[in-house]
Formats: sequence, C-alpha cells, structure tokens
Amino acid sequence: MTHDPATPAKATGGNGRRQRAPGSTEWTTSLTRIAPNEIEIRGYPVDELMGRLMFSEGIYLLLRGELPSASIGKLFTAVLLSSLDHGVTPPSTLAARHVASSGSPLANAVAAGILAFGAYHGGDIEAVMRCLQEGISLHHGGMSYEDAARRLLEKHCGIGPTPPGFGHRIHTRDPRAARLLQLAHELDLDGEHCRLLRVVERVLNAMPGRAQHPLPLNIDGAIAAVCGDLGFGPEIGNGLFIISRVPGLLAHAVEEQLTQPPMRQIDRDEARYDGPARRRLPETRR
Amino acid sequence: MTHDPATPAKATGGNGRRQRAPGSTEWTTSLTRIAPNEIEIRGYPVDELMGRLMFSEGIYLLLRGELPSASIGKLFTAVLLSSLDHGVTPPSTLAARHVASSGSPLANAVAAGILAFGAYHGGDIEAVMRCLQEGISLHHGGMSYEDAARRLLEKHCGIGPTPPGFGHRIHTRDPRAARLLQLAHELDLDGEHCRLLRVVERVLNAMPGRAQHPLPLNIDGAIAAVCGDLGFGPEIGNGLFIISRVPGLLAHAVEEQLTQPPMRQIDRDEARYDGPARRRLPETRR
Amino acid sequence: MTHDPATPAKATGGNGRRQRAPGSTEWTTSLTRIAPNEIEIRGYPVDELMGRLMFSEGIYLLLRGELPSASIGKLFTAVLLSSLDHGVTPPSTLAARHVASSGSPLANAVAAGILAFGAYHGGDIEAVMRCLQEGISLHHGGMSYEDAARRLLEKHCGIGPTPPGFGHRIHTRDPRAARLLQLAHELDLDGEHCRLLRVVERVLNAMPGRAQHPLPLNIDGAIAAVCGDLGFGPEIGNGLFIISRVPGLLAHAVEEQLTQPPMRQIDRDEARYDGPARRRLPETRR
Amino acid sequence: MTHDPATPAKATGGNGRRQRAPGSTEWTTSLTRIAPNEIEIRGYPVDELMGRLMFSEGIYLLLRGELPSASIGKLFTAVLLSSLDHGVTPPSTLAARHVASSGSPLANAVAAGILAFGAYHGGDIEAVMRCLQEGISLHHGGMSYEDAARRLLEKHCGIGPTPPGFGHRIHTRDPRAARLLQLAHELDLDGEHCRLLRVVERVLNAMPGRAQHPLPLNIDGAIAAVCGDLGFGPEIGNGLFIISRVPGLLAHAVEEQLTQPPMRQIDRDEARYDGPARRRLPETRR
Repeated sequence: MTHDPATPAKATGGNGRRQRAPGSTEWTTSLTRIAPNEIEIRGYPVDELMGRLMFSEGIYLLLRGELPSASIGKLFTAVLLSSLDHGVTPPSTLAARHVASSGSPLANAVAAGILAFGAYHGGDIEAVMRCLQEGISLHHGGMSYEDAARRLLEKHCGIGPTPPGFGHRIHTRDPRAARLLQLAHELDLDGEHCRLLRVVERVLNAMPGRAQHPLPLNIDGAIAAVCGDLGFGPEIGNGLFIISRVPGLLAHAVEEQLTQPPMRQIDRDEARYDGPARRRLPETRR
Repeated sequence: MTHDPATPAKATGGNGRRQRAPGSTEWTTSLTRIAPNEIEIRGYPVDELMGRLMFSEGIYLLLRGELPSASIGKLFTAVLLSSLDHGVTPPSTLAARHVASSGSPLANAVAAGILAFGAYHGGDIEAVMRCLQEGISLHHGGMSYEDAARRLLEKHCGIGPTPPGFGHRIHTRDPRAARLLQLAHELDLDGEHCRLLRVVERVLNAMPGRAQHPLPLNIDGAIAAVCGDLGFGPEIGNGLFIISRVPGLLAHAVEEQLTQPPMRQIDRDEARYDGPARRRLPETRR
Repeated sequence: MTHDPATPAKATGGNGRRQRAPGSTEWTTSLTRIAPNEIEIRGYPVDELMGRLMFSEGIYLLLRGELPSASIGKLFTAVLLSSLDHGVTPPSTLAARHVASSGSPLANAVAAGILAFGAYHGGDIEAVMRCLQEGISLHHGGMSYEDAARRLLEKHCGIGPTPPGFGHRIHTRDPRAARLLQLAHELDLDGEHCRLLRVVERVLNAMPGRAQHPLPLNIDGAIAAVCGDLGFGPEIGNGLFIISRVPGLLAHAVEEQLTQPPMRQIDRDEARYDGPARRRLPETRR
Repeated sequence: MTHDPATPAKATGGNGRRQRAPGSTEWTTSLTRIAPNEIEIRGYPVDELMGRLMFSEGIYLLLRGELPSASIGKLFTAVLLSSLDHGVTPPSTLAARHVASSGSPLANAVAAGILAFGAYHGGDIEAVMRCLQEGISLHHGGMSYEDAARRLLEKHCGIGPTPPGFGHRIHTRDPRAARLLQLAHELDLDGEHCRLLRVVERVLNAMPGRAQHPLPLNIDGAIAAVCGDLGFGPEIGNGLFIISRVPGLLAHAVEEQLTQPPMRQIDRDEARYDGPARRRLPETRR
C-alpha cells in the first residue's frame, strides 16, 4: 500500500514500534552489537558462545533474546531437526535441484528452494499458530477446549480441503509429529497449544466420514503447538521451518551438482534411494 | 554451456556420477529415504534423532553421511555459530531488511539476503579452501609450507586488493577466527590446512609495508582451514556460511517487520544498538 | 495446505483444470510448442515475430493467446513503459543495488529486487483489480457507480491507511496515471473499470477531511483499471508490474557494479541525479 | 552502465567510478530523475514516452542513455523477442513452475526461474561477447579473422564440451539465430562481431569429426554478436536474456497456477502442447 504523504509513516510506541526524536533518522536494533573486534549476539560475545553453546541455542538466543533453559534448548533442537529434510519430492527441493542443475551457485539453488515455501508447503506453521491462539482465546473466554476445537474446524482457517496441521501427501502417521509432542510432554513443556491441538485432532477425526480417511496430525501442526507453548509469535513460525530446511536444500543442491549431469530431467518418481540402510543411533547417544 | 546433442550427457562412473542402466531414467540419491511413515536421514529415523542429536550434528550427518565424533561435532557447531549474525551492515542483511520493509513474506527477505552472498561477501570460504588445497599439494610435492605460502600469495587467488581469508571491513583482530583456530587446536583437529593458513598469515604480514597495515586472519579464512581439515570439499564451503547466516537474516527481517514502519529508508550508519549490554555465559555452561 | 492422501489432488474440468486420462501422467501446456528447429509461441514461429512484432505485442500474445489489435498494443505498451523505473528509492531497487554491491551476478540482483514486491510495493495492481471487479458486480446488480464506490471504500479492501490505487510517497499527481487513463480514452479502450475508478477517485476525495490531503490516483490504480478493461485477470496484475520493472532493476544493478565501489553504504537520500536534463522526444516520434 | 558511444557516460576516476567530494557521502545516478510529480528516464518524462515509444525502445533508452534509431530499435526488439519463451523444458521454467505449484506468489516463481540462469543456461551471452571482443582485438593486432577464430576455439573460453554460442539440446538449426543475423544484415547493423562469429562457425564446423556432428550457431551466440555490434558491453549480455525471458517465466507460472493442481509432479517429458496450431502473421504485419 502506498503511503499517504499527509500521514507520514511515523513510528509510534503502541505496537512496539520505536519512537524517534523529531528530526532524527536514528533507528535501533537489539540483535547484535558490532564494534571493532567485538561481536556480541544479544550481549554475548560470539567467541564465548563458540565451543559452549549449541547451534540451536545460539539461534534461540538470537531470535528470542535470552538463552534457553536446558529443556527448552532440547525441545527447540528437536523442532529444528524435525524438518531438516524430506527427500527429493517437495517442490522446494525440486526447485533447488533444477537451479543447481543449470550450474548456478549453491546460494541460488538454496534461495530458489526457499521461494517455494508457499501456501501449500511450509506455510502452515503460522496458520496453525494463529488458529490455536484463537482457540485459546475462546477457551479463556469460557469455552471448553472441545467447543473451541469445533469452532476452529468450522471456521477452518486454512486453504485447501484439509485444515492446516493435519494430513500429509505421504504419511498416515507423521513420526516427527508424534515424537515432538512426546518430547514436549517428557520435558513438561506442553501447554495450552499442545492440549488444544490434541483436542482438535480428536474432534476432527471423530467427524462423520473421517473414520475411513483419518487426518493425522502432521509436523507443521506439532511444531506450531510446541512453538506456541514456547512463546514464539506466529509471525516467526514459518521462519523456523526455513532455518530447519535450508541444510536439506543445500545437501540436495550439492548432491545434484556432484553426482548428476547438468540440464537433466529431474523426475521425482524415478528417484531411488541408495544411501545407508536403516540404522540406530549408538547407545552412547541415548 | 548448451549441450552438443552429439555427445549425450551420459553419466559415467569416473567422477562420482551415477551410471544408469541403458534406457532407464532412474536416478539415485543417498540423502534421505522417504516412505509412508518413515523418514530416514542417511539411514537414521528422524524421530530417533529428535531429542538425542544436536541440530549441528544432524546437519553434519546430512552433508557428510555419518555422525560426527563428539570433538568434530563441537568444532562444527562452533563453525556454524561463528557466522550466525553480524549486525545491520552487511549487504545481505540490508537486502533482507529492504525486502522485509516492503511487506514481503519472511521467506522472500531471507532469500534476498542469501542472494547477496557474492564475490565480496560470504564467497571467500570456497576460495580459501581451494588455495589451501593447492598449497598443501605443493607441500606434498616437496615445497616447504613457507615457500608454498609465498607461491599462493604471489598467485593471490582472489579478487580485490587483499587475499581471501584476510582483512575485514571492521575488525583488526577477528575474535571469531582466533577462537575457532584455538578450539580446533584444543580438540586436536587442526591439521595441514590450519597449519598452512598460519604460515600464510605470518608470511603475508611480514611483507614490506604490511607492518603499518596488518591483515589479520578473518573468519572466512579460519572456517576454510578448519573445514578443510574436517574433510569438507571446497564446493560446500560457502554453503556452510549460508546455513550459519540464515537465522541472522531471519532475525533481522522479523525485527524490521515488527519494529519499523514499512517502506522506510534503512540507513546502516544511523543504526544504534539498544539490546542487552555485554554479559557472560553462566558458569554452568563453561 | 498439505494434501489429504485420501482425496488425491485430481484435476477436474470445471475450473479450467485439465482432465487426465486415468493412469496417465500427461499434462498440457498451451503456451509454446518446441520441436527440433521449431519454436512457436501460441502458434506463431518466433523467427517470424522477430522483425515484425513489438516486444510488448509478443508479451501480450504469450500471456493472452492472441495478437493484440493496434490500439490494444499501443495501450499495453504504455502500461509496460509506465513502471519501467522509479529511481533509487524503492526498496526493490535498493535490495537489487545491495546485492549488486556484494559482487553477486546480475541475475541475483534482479531476483532480489523482484522479491521486494510486497504488500506495500508493487502488490496493489491485483488488489485494485479485485476491488473494481467487485464494484462492477455491484453495479451490474443494480447499484449506481457512486454507491458501489462508497461500498468499496467502506470495505476498503487493502492494507494501510489509504485504499490501494491511491496516494503516493512522493507524487501528488502521478503523471503516469493521468497519461495512461487519457491514452485509454483516446484509444476508446476505457470501459467499466476505468469508469468506476474515476468515480472512486471522486468519492474518495470528496470525503470529509480529504480536501487538505487529497489522495490522487496512482499508477497501480490506473494500470489495474486499464488492464481490467483489457480483459486481464487480477491474478496477473502484479506480474505485469514485474515485467515492466525488471529492466529498471537491471539498469540499477549494472550502474551499481560499473560506477560504485563494492560493499558500500547505499544511502538513498544522498543520491543525486546527474544524468541528462529534461528533454523532449523528437517531433518525428509524435 | 553500458556506454552509448554518442554520449559517453561521464564518470571520472579512470575506471568509471565517480569521485566524491572529500567527506561527502553523496553519490550519483544517471538513470532516472524523480521529483514530486516528475519522473524522467534519462531526461525524458515517462508520461511523454507512454503512447509514443515502444517498450523495447524504453528499455534501450534506460540501459544505454539515448533513444535508439529506428533500425537499432527494430533489431533490439528482435533480440528481446527471440528469447521470450522456450517451452516447459528449461530448468528455469521448471524451477518457476515448481515454486508456482506450491502456492507461492508469482514474484517468487519468476525470481526462482531467474536464479536458474546459470553456467549452462542463459549464461552464455556474456561469455561469447568476451570471446568475440578478444578475437576482434587479435584481428586489430594483425591477425586474420580465420586465425583469430582458431585461436579462440583453441582457448575455448567456455565450460563443457562445446564452445559457448554453439550447439543446442534440441535444435540442429536454431531458427532464432539465423533470423537475428539475417535481420542485422538487412538493417546494415552487422559489424565485426557478427563477421567474426560467422568465421568461428565456419572454422568450428570444418574441424575433423565435426561433419557428422555439426555445431550450429545458437541464439546466445547470435545475440552476443548482434549486441556486441550494437555497442553493449559484455557485462550486460546476460541481463538482456533476463529481460526477454521474464514474461515467459511469468506465463508458465500463471498457467501452472490456473490449470494444474498444486504440489504435483512436473514431468517435462510428459508435457503435451495443446495450444494453437502453427499460424502465420497477418499480411498487415509484414
């Protein structure tokens, strides 16, 4: 929307926007302080973090402003691991592979993959977070979780034939979603978002006709609930998916350039996995 | 290059490219296996990794095919933490903020930032890795590290007035570079790449005229040496910087959209940091 | 929205989607036919178009499926010329310049600029087209243009404090908007969309308080009305702005790389125009 | 900014870079002047151009600084028309379609397509221009065109098995290349670049073994030669391809979103053209 010059876009305080001294063009940022030989992320010198913090803890610190507790760090790490990669079939991965196939730099391939996170792919976490927030408000206003769930499903805030957070092209039981919610429970970090999501799942699948075609909770829904309970705002939900998936996009772009001829047809249904067979983590990591 | 139809782009085995059965359009990938209710990253079920692996370990596993040892995991984590963010001044961060300022989705802002990783910014890790590889070959052929370093500096495989891996717009002693090499040493993971880099630094700064204008090692150089010794190929060097910086780009895009009016002039010299003052990690994390 | 595997995403005919023979994976495209030594755009061999068609006519042909009449071609050309460039201040141009400043390829700079076409910039054409369509429907249902205009303004389908299609950061009378509507009128191509837009402008600026702060029609609004009357669907409105502005983004990226040092602060308020002074087209072109 | 020989781009400092008054942060741009109610592209008010100039002439004006003559405008228009689209098989088009398939905005799809213009696709124009410049220098230094051509082919400034500008995945005689060079000749605009390119084509295809597998000139080579003779610098060569192809990327993204289900497998070999059959331009356009 183009701005009306009569109402200058002044930053006011109410909604979190910084106020500027009249005539000043100064603006503030609270993320990272840079000075000669000094790099501090939310106050912590980055060289101090190196060797002491996990990468996921550093990401959490940067995004939220404070170090996570051990439990929160563990759960947030699981969120980021959950969406690391999903094979060759997502349109984002295919977009990245096509760009890589043309001999473009890896950065271009990764960027192209990110651009494919659209309404039908990677864009659900925010939608579910907003739905859950709405349902929690209804609950706080006196409605039961059950009734709130029904209201949300009627309103069905999403696009396409299934509500956001449920269903999947391939999985009938998304192992990542189950594991994430289990971990949240083990760490005693599941709160209202997770609780409401469980109710929505139950109500949804009890609807007429659903018995034959159940709609399982998917990872977007689980991430949304967990991150809502961790205090993330919805506007950042899809951003966490980007952070998680970027290594996957990179890995596919690298594999494409290292092992395939350029300018080839990339047929997702003709891909065969020939990597390591299923294996378990060593005992030492349990 | 457009392909000569006379020599069809056949995949042969010599350079790592897969061979296909004649007439078959099948192709292989060794990253992630997907089947209904199964997601395995290099053989490991992703739900098993969640709650047990660090995010950086998962990234290493995906890129390299095997779990890192504890030491390697620690060093690789430090690599990823090192470039998490660098404030508002890099062109990538400014590109991301401008895109965010126009009301575009966060994915667009992050992608635009990634596209600014060019010859002068974020593109040095690969260049330094190739230089070091060349120097190590010279050394294996009989040349001393010192002479190899001189040869590299003469050849000066980079663009701009300073060799890649050295110098910085702001820092005269890049705290991240020093810390990374120190950590590599502590973990006994510094090898030939790190050793050669140290020699290059010494030789470079002993050159006539350098005394008044020393060129310190920067983080790109340190990452290149460390990742070379960790066995990463040069082609992936810049990709690691992308993974590291994406959370930073996201954080800036979110801050821009949450705290600033849209369509504003983004003056990097007018930015003032107003986040937490310097602070130390709690003892429990040391 | 992830798709429910129980209801496969089948293409049916009703909404324009192609039907496939059961079991077939064939899909159709009606844009360009390629065969050895043959390239036909909507049936016309491209080498025949070269030397005979205008570039804008080729674009129209590709997008609409048929050659435009002389009048339509002239008006469509004016649409594309209108948004060719708008100097150094738009966030898209600044994003492009920052990416160029880092030494990235021109393609990256142009792509980054395109990604800045967001809610507040370049995204209004579609919004206005949908609003006008809605108003025209109301009019067909019996409402006067005046009442339909009021209804639209109440509903105010847009974001920000001003309705889409009106107002501008800089201009109080957008010369491009006036000229485009004038040309549409001269060519007898202004229809219901243009007529309704004129009424909306009048009604909007007659509102209480507007006298001191008039909201002139801007180029997005004019393009929307003209393209609506030319029969373009709203979904393509923002696409036309992309086509128009890409040469501008490219020109700025090239100028940045040819005339400025890399990695510089790009301060839009410090830019001074030093190109040719105002001049008129030669008589021969009138 | 590419230089128009008629009005040299005044840039002081030897390498074209502007000089700034000491202490000043002012910088200059010579493209477009913006003031309230005034938009001038290289001095010409944009509303004057609308209705009088072709879109391609406006693009030329913006890039070169001056209006093209009628002949140059006609040839430049043909350059832009030549690469408007090439069907569904290029990786850029497939990247765009995959991004469109995920429900992303059209801008994302177009940007992703642009990012696929890499070493093997869309990146040859600049390479050929530089080669031809080199050959012309050799010729000016006394070498015959024939010997210069041989030298270039030996040096073979390109990647892959065929020299840039020759060969094609599909065409054995690129109709666009032939037409463009013919038009340049008809308009008496073919100069040294075109002449040398013809010699290179002859020498290349007379080489041992080429008889069975001729390498025809492709459109990248023809555009490079024509644009070289029009005075464009090599750095802008690939940019012209971007301008030309963007409408094609947009058309494919729109068709994908309007006629196909989301998240589908996009198999380029399964595409069937069902648009208009071959047809000729009306007589009135000849």
